[in-house]
Amino acid sequence: MSESKELHSFDELVVKALNDKELEEFNRIYYGRSCHLQLDLQQESIAIAEKNNFEIAGYTFLAKTEETRSARTVKIGIIQHSIVATTDKPIREQRTAIFDKILRIIDAAGNEGVNIICLQEAWSMPFAFCTREKQPWCEFSESAESGPSTQFLRELAIKYNMVIISPILERDEIHGDTIWNTAVVISETGKVLGKHRKNHIPRVGDFNESTYYFEGNTGHPVFETKYGRIAINICYGRHHPQNWLMFGLNGAEVVFNPSATVAGLSEHLWGVEARNAAIANSYFTCAINRVGTEHFSNEFTSGDGKPAHKDFGHFYGSSYITAPDGSRTPGLSRVRDGLLIAQLDLNLCRQIKDKWGFTMTQRLDLYAKSLNEAVKPDYKPQIIKDI
Amino acid sequence: MSESKELHSFDELVVKALNDKELEEFNRIYYGRSCHLQLDLQQESIAIAEKNNFEIAGYTFLAKTEETRSARTVKIGIIQHSIVATTDKPIREQRTAIFDKILRIIDAAGNEGVNIICLQEAWSMPFAFCTREKQPWCEFSESAESGPSTQFLRELAIKYNMVIISPILERDEIHGDTIWNTAVVISETGKVLGKHRKNHIPRVGDFNESTYYFEGNTGHPVFETKYGRIAINICYGRHHPQNWLMFGLNGAEVVFNPSATVAGLSEHLWGVEARNAAIANSYFTCAINRVGTEHFSNEFTSGDGKPAHKDFGHFYGSSYITAPDGSRTPGLSRVRDGLLIAQLDLNLCRQIKDKWGFTMTQRLDLYAKSLNEAVKPDYKPQIIKDI
Repeated sequence: MSESKELHSFDELVVKALNDKELEEFNRIYYGRSCHLQLDLQQESIAIAEKNNFEIAGYTFLAKTEETRSARTVKIGIIQHSIVATTDKPIREQRTAIFDKILRIIDAAGNEGVNIICLQEAWSMPFAFCTREKQPWCEFSESAESGPSTQFLRELAIKYNMVIISPILERDEIHGDTIWNTAVVISETGKVLGKHRKNHIPRVGDFNESTYYFEGNTGHPVFETKYGRIAINICYGRHHPQNWLMFGLNGAEVVFNPSATVAGLSEHLWGVEARNAAIANSYFTCAINRVGTEHFSNEFTSGDGKPAHKDFGHFYGSSYITAPDGSRTPGLSRVRDGLLIAQLDLNLCRQIKDKWGFTMTQRLDLYAKSLNEAVKPDYKPQIIKDI
Repeated sequence: MSESKELHSFDELVVKALNDKELEEFNRIYYGRSCHLQLDLQQESIAIAEKNNFEIAGYTFLAKTEETRSARTVKIGIIQHSIVATTDKPIREQRTAIFDKILRIIDAAGNEGVNIICLQEAWSMPFAFCTREKQPWCEFSESAESGPSTQFLRELAIKYNMVIISPILERDEIHGDTIWNTAVVISETGKVLGKHRKNHIPRVGDFNESTYYFEGNTGHPVFETKYGRIAINICYGRHHPQNWLMFGLNGAEVVFNPSATVAGLSEHLWGVEARNAAIANSYFTCAINRVGTEHFSNEFTSGDGKPAHKDFGHFYGSSYITAPDGSRTPGLSRVRDGLLIAQLDLNLCRQIKDKWGFTMTQRLDLYAKSLNEAVKPDYKPQIIKDI
């Protein structure tokens, strides 16, 4: 599919236009640091990326040395990718083609010694929920514990000693064959450590995803992996600060936000929400968006008065990582597959809590009481009128 | 005070560097709309601004026409300003000098027909809390109902038929002469409609403001004014999404965030937090920061290992307004006094709730339960371990 009409990168747009001194100020105010700390990448990784036509970028986030804790340095990676086979091909063919692409990208991540990697939302299928067609898309659903995606990634987790987060369309045979939007956490031993189901389901624009799956019933689990405590806030949950909050209260140090969102709808929100969550909760966040335009055989409408169409717009990629201090990496491309790596010290989370004190000053007891009142059907809002 | 070394405007930095097509893309992704809708300002207002050396800017936010509700168009204004007299002058002299400056700016706002205006945090005094000196700064505290700031603004409220939000240092004589960081809401009739006290108090960098005042005890009031339902989230409360949330649950349509924050600490967070609140809660937010560098007679330290000093950095202004759809205005200058006006239709709040459905999908009952558990001393976080 041609993306030529699309801007390639928001970040490059500014970089090439400003002189060094201007860029330093822009970077300081926009990214939170005057210059990006680039990570030196292996030649072999760069070669894999060039050969397989995906972008690879790496950055470092530093923390202070502590007397009583040693540094907890970890390399995290996030992947954004377009689908490969057209959406009218057999399901197995579409899925296998994506597997082959992801294999190469994870090879590069493994070569870089990435410890934890996260794929995009519903990574092994087109994001077909805009069609409202149950078939064939429901057939992409699979067992979180033993489905093809988990089987495929389990081998790579073992091979690269890597924790892999696999957001899929889950089929829950034990509970009435229900379908869920689920992130599966595969530990570096190849074992399924657990799973989390998307807490907030959109009914916006092209998507009423409750056509396919409902609000998650797995709470706000934090997965204590060999490399650190991680959580997953799936897609639309990034619009809900309380969702981010609970992952923080449960001890998350890195929260991944695997998403699928298009330019017309959300691009001006993209740089704001996951980043605000990192700031408010003193943890790292990783915003992951798929890339490219997906075309479907049958036309559908978007409830916006516009004529029926066969695609619903461009997934703009632009995946990025934010540190607890609010500084962030540039985004990946708006049009290409990409692997973004960040080397970071998890000790920074507590250091920022000590510096800013957001957890100490957040008055949770007040809000626990307030929310209990607010959810009552007969809630009386605190309104002061001129009487 | 010379601010010549300071960048004048983050927004101008980019505007002058990009060509039209590039700027359109930058604006679309960064501001949320390809071009800013400028408000036509009166010649007389521009003349007042030029004569008194402050910036004046105005923008429009549009909403769809509804069949069953008429448009609720309102003009809101926010003011950022530096102090006038040096901080070693008598208190009355310092305060009067600021009054004289604010009088001119509100004249311009009145000339533009602004309906609701908000001043910056502790607007009638230097932000001296970094000094940890109780005297003379505590003497700036005043009665919310009848102090000099309220008396001064009451007349202007009546003159211009304007609701004025006045964030001051409050002295509460009824309760042990305690001091509070308080926003006073003066209705267009000159009556004090009510007040709100800062809910979250920083202990960061130069500021442990609890040296002077404690966490507010006024809840999350929404003030139903002639022109719309407004609330005030004072300064550090912008870092707390739950604070923003409660104002939304109580029905706020515009939430003002009068602040005082300096470049070294927070500038990369400034464009993120108030904007995220507008998105998450489907209301308008107004981020207001004071401007300039304030020097004090006695040196003080900042708990950062650096030598004692007599100022703690540059207040970078950059006040801006965000709509419920996440689109925003450019910021005011980083170095000059300024008046930012936005003409908006409050109907946009509900229209965005209908479009995005954040209030419908936020699962408050789940979070009410979760927070009640989380605040218990023996709370067991939801952690999944590899066993």
